[in-house]
Order: sequence, then structure tokens, then C-alpha cells
Amino acid sequence: MKIAVNTGGGDAPGLNAVIRAVTLAGLRRGWQIVGLRNGYRSLLDPATPLVTLDRKAVRGITMQGGTILGTANRGNPFEMPVQRPDGTWTTEDQSDRLVARFREEGIDALIAIGGDGSMKIAGRLIEKGIPVVGVPKTIDNDLPETDFTLGFDTAVSIATDAIDRIQTTAESHERVMVVEVMGRYAGWIALHAGLSASADAILIPEIPFDLESVAAKVRENEANGRHHSIIVVAEGAVERGGKVMVQGKAVGQAEQLGGIGAYVASRLGTLTGKETRHLVLGHLQRGGSPSTFDRLISLKCGAEAVRMVEEGAFNQLVILKGQETRRVPIPQIAGGMKKVPLDGDAICTARELGVSLGDG
Amino acid sequence: MKIAVNTGGGDAPGLNAVIRAVTLAGLRRGWQIVGLRNGYRSLLDPATPLVTLDRKAVRGITMQGGTILGTANRGNPFEMPVQRPDGTWTTEDQSDRLVARFREEGIDALIAIGGDGSMKIAGRLIEKGIPVVGVPKTIDNDLPETDFTLGFDTAVSIATDAIDRIQTTAESHERVMVVEVMGRYAGWIALHAGLSASADAILIPEIPFDLESVAAKVRENEANGRHHSIIVVAEGAVERGGKVMVQGKAVGQAEQLGGIGAYVASRLGTLTGKETRHLVLGHLQRGGSPSTFDRLISLKCGAEAVRMVEEGAFNQLVILKGQETRRVPIPQIAGGMKKVPLDGDAICTARELGVSLGDG
Amino acid sequence: MKIAVNTGGGDAPGLNAVIRAVTLAGLRRGWQIVGLRNGYRSLLDPATPLVTLDRKAVRGITMQGGTILGTANRGNPFEMPVQRPDGTWTTEDQSDRLVARFREEGIDALIAIGGDGSMKIAGRLIEKGIPVVGVPKTIDNDLPETDFTLGFDTAVSIATDAIDRIQTTAESHERVMVVEVMGRYAGWIALHAGLSASADAILIPEIPFDLESVAAKVRENEANGRHHSIIVVAEGAVERGGKVMVQGKAVGQAEQLGGIGAYVASRLGTLTGKETRHLVLGHLQRGGSPSTFDRLISLKCGAEAVRMVEEGAFNQLVILKGQETRRVPIPQIAGGMKKVPLDGDAICTARELGVSLGDG
Amino acid sequence: MKIAVNTGGGDAPGLNAVIRAVTLAGLRRGWQIVGLRNGYRSLLDPATPLVTLDRKAVRGITMQGGTILGTANRGNPFEMPVQRPDGTWTTEDQSDRLVARFREEGIDALIAIGGDGSMKIAGRLIEKGIPVVGVPKTIDNDLPETDFTLGFDTAVSIATDAIDRIQTTAESHERVMVVEVMGRYAGWIALHAGLSASADAILIPEIPFDLESVAAKVRENEANGRHHSIIVVAEGAVERGGKVMVQGKAVGQAEQLGGIGAYVASRLGTLTGKETRHLVLGHLQRGGSPSTFDRLISLKCGAEAVRMVEEGAFNQLVILKGQETRRVPIPQIAGGMKKVPLDGDAICTARELGVSLGDG
Repeated sequence: MKIAVNTGGGDAPGLNAVIRAVTLAGLRRGWQIVGLRNGYRSLLDPATPLVTLDRKAVRGITMQGGTILGTANRGNPFEMPVQRPDGTWTTEDQSDRLVARFREEGIDALIAIGGDGSMKIAGRLIEKGIPVVGVPKTIDNDLPETDFTLGFDTAVSIATDAIDRIQTTAESHERVMVVEVMGRYAGWIALHAGLSASADAILIPEIPFDLESVAAKVRENEANGRHHSIIVVAEGAVERGGKVMVQGKAVGQAEQLGGIGAYVASRLGTLTGKETRHLVLGHLQRGGSPSTFDRLISLKCGAEAVRMVEEGAFNQLVILKGQETRRVPIPQIAGGMKKVPLDGDAICTARELGVSLGDG
Repeated sequence: MKIAVNTGGGDAPGLNAVIRAVTLAGLRRGWQIVGLRNGYRSLLDPATPLVTLDRKAVRGITMQGGTILGTANRGNPFEMPVQRPDGTWTTEDQSDRLVARFREEGIDALIAIGGDGSMKIAGRLIEKGIPVVGVPKTIDNDLPETDFTLGFDTAVSIATDAIDRIQTTAESHERVMVVEVMGRYAGWIALHAGLSASADAILIPEIPFDLESVAAKVRENEANGRHHSIIVVAEGAVERGGKVMVQGKAVGQAEQLGGIGAYVASRLGTLTGKETRHLVLGHLQRGGSPSTFDRLISLKCGAEAVRMVEEGAFNQLVILKGQETRRVPIPQIAGGMKKVPLDGDAICTARELGVSLGDG
Repeated sequence: MKIAVNTGGGDAPGLNAVIRAVTLAGLRRGWQIVGLRNGYRSLLDPATPLVTLDRKAVRGITMQGGTILGTANRGNPFEMPVQRPDGTWTTEDQSDRLVARFREEGIDALIAIGGDGSMKIAGRLIEKGIPVVGVPKTIDNDLPETDFTLGFDTAVSIATDAIDRIQTTAESHERVMVVEVMGRYAGWIALHAGLSASADAILIPEIPFDLESVAAKVRENEANGRHHSIIVVAEGAVERGGKVMVQGKAVGQAEQLGGIGAYVASRLGTLTGKETRHLVLGHLQRGGSPSTFDRLISLKCGAEAVRMVEEGAFNQLVILKGQETRRVPIPQIAGGMKKVPLDGDAICTARELGVSLGDG
Repeated sequence: MKIAVNTGGGDAPGLNAVIRAVTLAGLRRGWQIVGLRNGYRSLLDPATPLVTLDRKAVRGITMQGGTILGTANRGNPFEMPVQRPDGTWTTEDQSDRLVARFREEGIDALIAIGGDGSMKIAGRLIEKGIPVVGVPKTIDNDLPETDFTLGFDTAVSIATDAIDRIQTTAESHERVMVVEVMGRYAGWIALHAGLSASADAILIPEIPFDLESVAAKVRENEANGRHHSIIVVAEGAVERGGKVMVQGKAVGQAEQLGGIGAYVASRLGTLTGKETRHLVLGHLQRGGSPSTFDRLISLKCGAEAVRMVEEGAFNQLVILKGQETRRVPIPQIAGGMKKVPLDGDAICTARELGVSLGDG
């Protein structure tokens, strides 16, 4: 057996742990394990060698962030960017050539680690006859069916740590601090980090916000002798009734101001008369050594993916229920979105703690 | 309504987050919230005032380790230590006086946060007519029914971080390092931290170990050019066929050597001829700021406990399934033990990675 | 003796350790220690009570970021903002009233903890007869005479940690990442964090940069098989010959783009054709628990300040040479600026490591 | 030019940063840089190849703990362990053969990174004609002349972090916690970590301790309403007038109890009647990623060592005064010991804070 591993989309802490588990579990079965460098593009180019994944290659990588295989932002083989003779760019379906290359290299199965986009590509490769097992990855935790996705716990921890730091400086200066975190379509990071770091308001895509309601929370704090406030905003949060954000894409005033965090800070300054600052955590959230939780679920997912290949359980995805892995068909997931449930424990806890969700 | 909160048993990161959530959720309902200082003993002594839990008392405590209420190691009201006139000690059932004091103070319900011992006490107080809701706490994660208990993720993270540190010094000196972690009856911490930190062998109470098998792993490493090995041992691990440990209690040679970690290190040195060192993490694992994961589940449990009081759902415990809280009757839990399942993903992943579990 | 403590200017990790050391060393001498809340303004208002600093008030604060006394951004008693009857604002010299209030409160001496601005105010209060001892504080480390200022080591550590995280994501995506750190007039944080985190280029105010030179470094990396680059930019870095930045104040194009980091990222993207991202660390750098190094120098400075008061060594400042405190007259410092020496070990080391300083 | 690098003695965070700086600064001059694997022994064995240190070998190692070259505990070429035909061990002077091997390999100079023992060896190699530059390394910070040695700041940070964690559990349980840290002959780590983590008593080799005096501090805490105490003990601390410890070597009762920490804990339990626990930090203190401070001084020392080789400044050592490197002759250091000065700022600050040094 010869198994290929691919990491696609944005990097996430835990990818290397998956690669290590796949490699060790595969070698144990006497299989050959190879990695695609920077996504499918490398396989399309016969000059680019596959990465040999042996014991030495994966030593010590569980604790490393990123992916030793690299990842490609524009690596969709069905829409591969190619340059025209006149220098302009277009896209081309190179999937048949990719499938042929898989055959040439003698690859028996593919373990595709990636997000929603990668799973869609995986689904189409399966239709073309490539046996694929999927390992889902999204820092945003917005994948259906699974309790947790790898990278999420680390991202929440980094965001919480940052907000913890911001607390003391906000308190010393009696400021309103707005922290913008990741979460284009779902507010998991904002909600978990905001709760963990005792934020005063948390604005998420699932609940369009009213800034007057947030300003009221800031004023309530003042009245209670708390002269600073911490507002956590998901990048995809939208203003109620407004046209400020559309599907996570900043438009109009927010864009001019440099994003939703800056917009909220500016408007809250006006509404409350308080000194206001904002901070965009951005790429900090996806970097660095994975948390213990992410290392463990990544290792479990990698080991399970190899068992799935062994059993011929293709076109399926590894997910997590509590501490155990489960399998679901890839099509059951693709295109879906796990929003924060408005009646779940996280939202209810936020309300119990008196955190403003911008809808007061 | 007047609600009392008690924290019992060993401290765990996350206790303060539970206290904060209970307080804020209770105040929001117009209730009065009080805390028992250092367990039930304080209530027995009318001179010791209850701790008033208001907004100010719980400000900023989510991120603090320990418990602001303190905890008592010998605070069982059914077996309260009392000194005889001659200076010797005995125990006395003071539960009736405790119940009377609850009445005197006008306490309508008790939220008891604690481990297995605390839940047993809670069960008996319920029989005496005190309405109790339980919030389970055990760093060891060995409570039945629940996916995670508060404090566990932090303990695993601290242990993982320590083992990560040990890796570089072990590698530089080409040593065998034995790290002893908590886990008297169940090997959750050892297994999770060992996997996360890429240990070579993990010894847990569920799988009696054979040191020759561990030594074989050390020799296999040597043969593979890895000249150091990391062995993680749960404090309750037992030697196969041997009488070294009985139910987590060190006897014989291990005791003389200062615990199971020292024993394993000493014996492995003899068996492999390698330089060997050991480290006991001990109290490090229960101290300090809770992880984001523990903060969040603690806040959720605290908020849910208040809702349970509100709904009169007494004699029940808050547990976690995935990311959501559930309720189970206290008697269903008491005395039970959630061992590491030998066919679960954690054990299977360890085997896939080639980690020795001492039973090879 | 009755001693007042004031913290002025931006907060810095370590302020609370100074306050604790002053308090404990003062109490030990039988003195009374009080703190000004949010700067001099509180003393001007007789309705605002002084903060009593006793043993309990300073318990556990060594490890806390920020300042328990709060700090005021516009608290200069010589130019105190006051509102005119028509609602507009002006400033007023209220220093005589402040001096009178010091007398009324029976304060024998003032320990002023702050930056350059605070030391100027201290100098003028001394002229008006208030005995002052100064403890310098600046995250930027740009104070003359002293080897280190409190808060600097923590800021460098936070920035280093952030850049470490960025490395893995930059490598996975083969991107150029630009990280903007603090340092308006001196490049200490950029240089120390950049070296510690293995940056490829470090741009500081002391060395006007040429972006073509930085782009050449990015291309050199590519040629060496390193497909990502990390550029650290001090907020006060200036483009050579250009008019982009004037004395740390962004003008023109950089301002439009949201600061020097965004400007450098945008231009490098154009010059190199690489995908480029930027991150502004901002307030993250001054928040959170102080590093051990900062805790220790803060405690030493606080203890020494009390000895100076005891000995009547007023109008002086505590500084650090290696591990020991020294005293210098406040006027010797005021208005000075410790730039990064171009022939010092930090710059020379950067050049030895092949780091671009933008002047190649 | 061909330069060899050796790392000797116990590993310390920062060694890899020195190796990286030496390599990059050497390559920049067109030199060849090689490393000895696991100390001098490898060079004695012609079958063991030298480690080629090129750009790729040192990529990303600044942040890694340990040493990529490995280190040998018994690697003194003047007293090299050799096995007799009968299986017993003796030592042999193999220095002439080492010198011959240096010549054979065409090595022009040696950069020796190590502690006191390594510097003594370096001094003797110089006498035999090998040009050596020394880079001192000792976690204990007990090297004369220098303000800081690499690894010390990291060790102090780890110890401080551990004691911070212990604080909350000690407080919750109202216990006395004794933490044993490194420092065989000098109390730098105990003193710096103890001050930073607000210990109640700090016992160091420089000040023989009286346990009754420490017990008095515990009782004073009780009287002040602080029901827990933290005692930090250097491994080389000695009891006053007693014979418990001799030159860092535990004898008598302390040895039976498993070290000085266990001894102090046991005796304090008896003296105060409080529940007492102890923790030995051991190898934790030398593992893991170096602090920013250690990374920076290591890089500076490495770069300076190369300049010294270039200038022919042999038989000298790189030291640090404040932020700048200096050079001192190796013999001026060898055998010396930088004890904690009893009139320095650290000790004086401890006394000002009311910390017991066991001599009250």
C-alpha cells in the first residue's frame, strides 16, 4: 500500500500531529507513506518529488504548528490557476491529469486533511475514482456533526490569553478595548474566548448586533464601578438591520476603518464618550504549538484515518463525539455549517453571566 | 432564595469559574449567594461568618487557580474530627447540627462542588433534607458519565508542558527520563499527556506493566537512533503480577524508593544500562490558572447548577457530553469510576503510534 | 512618615511589583503609605480619597499586570485639562493647588513611577518643594543611563512569542509576514524580539530603511530555499530619504494604510510579488503578568526608592546597572533618549546573523 | 578557516542559539564550521564524523532547548573513562590524542561552550596548543565577572511559574509548600524565583538556615491571616551549625528523606503543626525553549566568540556587562564562584519585603 497525505487550506495547529499519526500507523502496517508538498499542484508537476514520510521525518512534529507539507491557498485541481500566453491568468480543470498522476505514482489512497473547500475537492476526486479519507480541519470549529475540530482549542486559547493581557491595561487606563477574533460565519472562537476571558460583550455572526445595546453594557459597567470594558468581536459579526457586513465581507464604513473591530471601537467611542482602542488578533490565532487538546484529537484522527483506509471506508470523514472518533460520509458534511446554537450552553451561560450579545 | 456554595476535596483549576457563574447567575435572579469558608466545618462553628458572594467578590476570578472559598481535607460532617479531653482525636457525626445550621442561616439550597467524596456527602445531606445540586470536580477525570471534568484539561496541559521541557534535556544527555503524574485509579492524565508529549511508554493503572517490555522499547529506540526515552507513569500504575502497588498505595520497594516513578526509573536503569532520571510533577498539576477549556466548562456547569436549583432539580449532578451540559442523579455516579477504556481511541492511538503501554 | 505613590503614563508590567515593594518596605519602617488613584487629578479633588496601601492591599500583586492605582493619560498638574463654561476645553496650571493638597494630606514625600513625561512633572514638583524620588518606567527601554527599564523584558517576550507563532503559519503558506511592534523613538523591542524570534529583517527608528534592501533579503531567502520571511518593524521606523514617518508620527501613505506595518507589507508585496500579511501587536505588548526579570527589577527599584526616601536622597531616580540599582539625578535623565547604539552588541549580532536592517 | 564547536556539561536553554550565531557568523566569513557530537569523545573516535554546521542545520534552533550537538557528562579528555580488560573502569589522559585529532581534522580553533568544568578543560587544551575561545554556560549563574549566564533567566522563569502555580493550591488547602530548586553552591535561582513568586522564605547556600526562624515566619503569616506559606530552598542550602549538608552534598537525615526540600518540609511540619508538602523541580528547570533574554545573550555571545577567533583573542571568555559583551581571560574565571552578595540588591530587597532568609 502507498498512501498520500495532503494538507489544504489555511494552516491550523494540529496538522503535524495528524501527519505523524498517519505516518506511524501506516509504517506499522508496512505501508509506504508520502506527502504532497504545498497541495495538489506539486503532483501535477512531475518534476516536484513527493515528500517521503518516514519515522525520522515526523519525529518531534506533534508539538509544531503549521504543516511540514506546506499548504496552498489556490490549489484546487478543478480550478487551477494557469497563466495565458499574454500574461493574464485563468483557471483550468486539471483534475484528470491529477488522477493520472496518482495512478502513475502508484498511490492507493489519499488522506485529505483540510477544511470545507478541501472536502469538496475530495468529494469530486472520489467521483473520479480516487479513494479518499477526510480529516476535517478548521480553526473556526464550524464543521457540522463534530464536537471539535483540530486547531480550534489552540485558537481559543491564544485569543483568551491575548484578552487576559488586554484586561490589565484596559483597567489601568479605564478604556474600552475591542478585540477582533477569527470566525467568518460562526462565532465559536469569539464566544469561547470571550467567556473564558470575562468579556463584557461578545458579538458573533449568529446574532446581529445593535451598538446601542453594547454601549448600554459599557455604561452599566461604569455605574457598577467597573470603568473598563472588553468587547470581543468575530470578524464576521454583522450590525443589526444595517448593511455594514455581508456574509463576513466588510463593506462600506467598516471597510474604510480597517475591519469590524475598528468600526465597533470607533462607534462605541462616539456612543459612550470613553477612550477606546481595538486590536486585531489575525494570524496569531493560527500559529504556534498546538494545545494538548488539539494534539490529542489530531493524533486520534490520524490513527483513525489509517484504520479507515485499511478497512476501505472511503468517502468518509473522521469526526469527534466527546473523546471518541466517529465516521460520517463526506457529502453529509460538505457545504454545511455548524453555527453556534442559540439555545446551547455557551450562549445560555453568556446570558447568565450578564455578557451582552449585542441584542439586549 | 438564599443559596450556599461549598468547594470540597483537593483544589482544581476551574473551581473559581464555577463560583463566579453561580454567583452571577444567582444574583441575576435576585437570589442571595453565600459561600462556606473551608468546607462544612465553618458552618458548624456559628462564630465563623459565611462568605458573601456578590459581584465584586467574583470579579476576575475565572482565571485564578484554587478556590476563593478554600477547601478542607477533613471536612466530612458525618465524620468530623474532634479532639477528646485527653488530647487524642476521634470522629463524630455532626450532620444533624449542620442541617440545623443550614436552617438557621435560611439557606434554601446547596451547590456542592467536589469529587467523589463530596458527592457521597451530598447524597447523605439530601437524605437529611438539604436540597443539593452537585458540580463534579476531579483532576483525574475518572468520574462516570461525563466526557470531561473540570481541572483535567489544565492538569494534562501542565504535564504535557513539563514533558515537552524534559524532552530536550533527555535528548541532549541521551537519558531515560521517567515522569510521574497524577492518576491514582485511572490513567487519563498519563495517557493524554504522554500522547501529547510524544512519550515512548505510558504506564497506567488499567494496564499492569511489565518492566522488561518497557526496557525493550528503550532498546528499540536505541536501535532506531533515538538515544533517549520518555516514560510517563501514573501514580497508581501497578507492576504486572507483582505486589508493588496495591490500589494506588505504594508498598514495598517502590515506597522505599520514594514512589512509583523512582521505582520505575531505578529498575529501568538496571535493565537497560542507560542513565536514568525521574521527576514527580505532584502539586504542579493542580495549580495555576485554568485552561480555556476548563474555564468554559466550569462556567457552563455553574450556570446550569443555578438553573437546576431554579427548577428544583435536586439530587442531581451536572455533567458534560461534548460541549453541552446534562444532568444525572447523584447516586448514579457515586462510587463509580471511569477507567480508561482499553478499546477507546486514546489507547488505540497509543498502540498505532508504537507507544509501549508496558504490556507488549 | 507618610509617603504617597503615583503611577503615571502608559501602564507597564511591573508597576504593581514596585507598589508592593514600596508598601512593604515602608510599613517595615512604620511609615504610612498611600496611593493616588489615577494620577494627580485625584489629589486635586478633595472628594477623592487616597488609596491606603497596607499589607492586604498589595498581597499577590507582584504577578499582576497593569497598576492597582490606575494611571491617567492627561494627568499633568501643570497642564490640567479643564472645561470652559461654553463646553470647550483648555488647560490650567493647577500645580500650586496640588502642592497645597500634598501639605494638607500630610504627605512627606512622593515616589513617582513613570516615564519621561512623569519625570519632567516630578522635576517641576521638586522645584515647588515636594520631595520626590523617581522610579523610571518605559516599555520602550529608551531611558538614558539605565541598562533596563521595567516592562521592557515582558514586552519583548510577548512580541517574541507572537513572532514565534507567526513563523509556522508564514512557513506553511510561504508568505512574507510583517509584524509591527512598539518603539516610537528607539528600536529596542523590535531589535530584541526580532533577534530572539529569528526575523529576517528588523526596521528601527535609528536606521532609516530602504524597502528595496528588505526586498533583496526576501529574494535571497527564496534563493536559499526559505520561502517565507518575517519582517519586524518598530512603529517609529522611517523610510530612508522619504517623508513617510516624522518622529514616530505616520504621515501620508503609511497613515492611509493604517500604520507603518501595513505600509511595509503593501510595498513589499509589490516589490517581491509574494503574498504578504501584516500584524500590529499594539496593546498586547503592555498587558499581562510581568516576566520574572521585570518582577525582580521592579521589586528592587521599589525597595531602593524607599531607602532613598529614608536617606533624603530626593530629586533622584533609581536605575539599573547589571543586577544592581544605582541613583542618578532626575534632571540628568529628563528629555534624554537612549537610542540603540549602532556599534553595540545587538546591532552587531544582527549583522553577523545576516539580518537585514534595511540599510544593505 | 575551520572552526569546531563543543557543548559540554549539563544542557542549558540557549546553547542552540550560541551554535546558530557561531555558524552564521562563521559562514559569513567563508569559514567552515563543524560541531563535536556529544563532546570530545566523538573526536577521539575517528569513526564518528564531525557534525557539519551549515545554514540548514541551524535553521529554527534559536527557540529550541537542549543542544543539537548533544553533551557528555563524562567527556573530560584528561580523564576519559576507559574499560579495563577485566570489565572494570578507570580513567586515562587522552588529551594528546585529542590534540592530534584536532590537527588531523584541520581545525584551526575551538569554541568551547560550557560550565566551570568545561572551562578548566579548555584552559588545559590551550596549554597544549589548541586555540580556544570560551562561552560560559551555567544555569546556576555562579560564574564570576559576568552579570548573567545563559540558561539562568529561563531556569528562574520556569521556577517562578511553578511557584506561582503552587501558590493557589497552597492557599486553598492552607498548607506550607516547600519547593526545591537548583543551586548547588550559589542561591541565585532560589533568590530570584523566590522573590518573583512572592515566597515567604528563601534558603540559599550563602546563608546557613535556622529552621526555627523559618517556622517563626510561618507563624507570623498565620497571625496576619495568611494561612499558607511558600518556602523556596536551593538544593545546596545548609542548616546552620548542623551537619545536614556539606558542599551541596546531602548527608544524614536529609539524604534519607530524599533531599533538602523533603527535609525542610518534614521539619517544618513538626515545628509548626501545619500540613506540609514539598516539590523538587529538578530537570524541569533546564528544559524547554529559552526565554527571550537567554536567546538574546546567547546570540550575542556566539557572534562575539567568532569575532574573537577572527581577532586571535584566544584563551578568553565572553561575558556580559549589562547588555554588552566583554572578554576576560579564562584563567581569571576558572575555579571561581560568584556567590550571591549579602549586601546586594537582591538580598536587601528580600529583607525589605519581609522574606525570611532563615537567619532571623
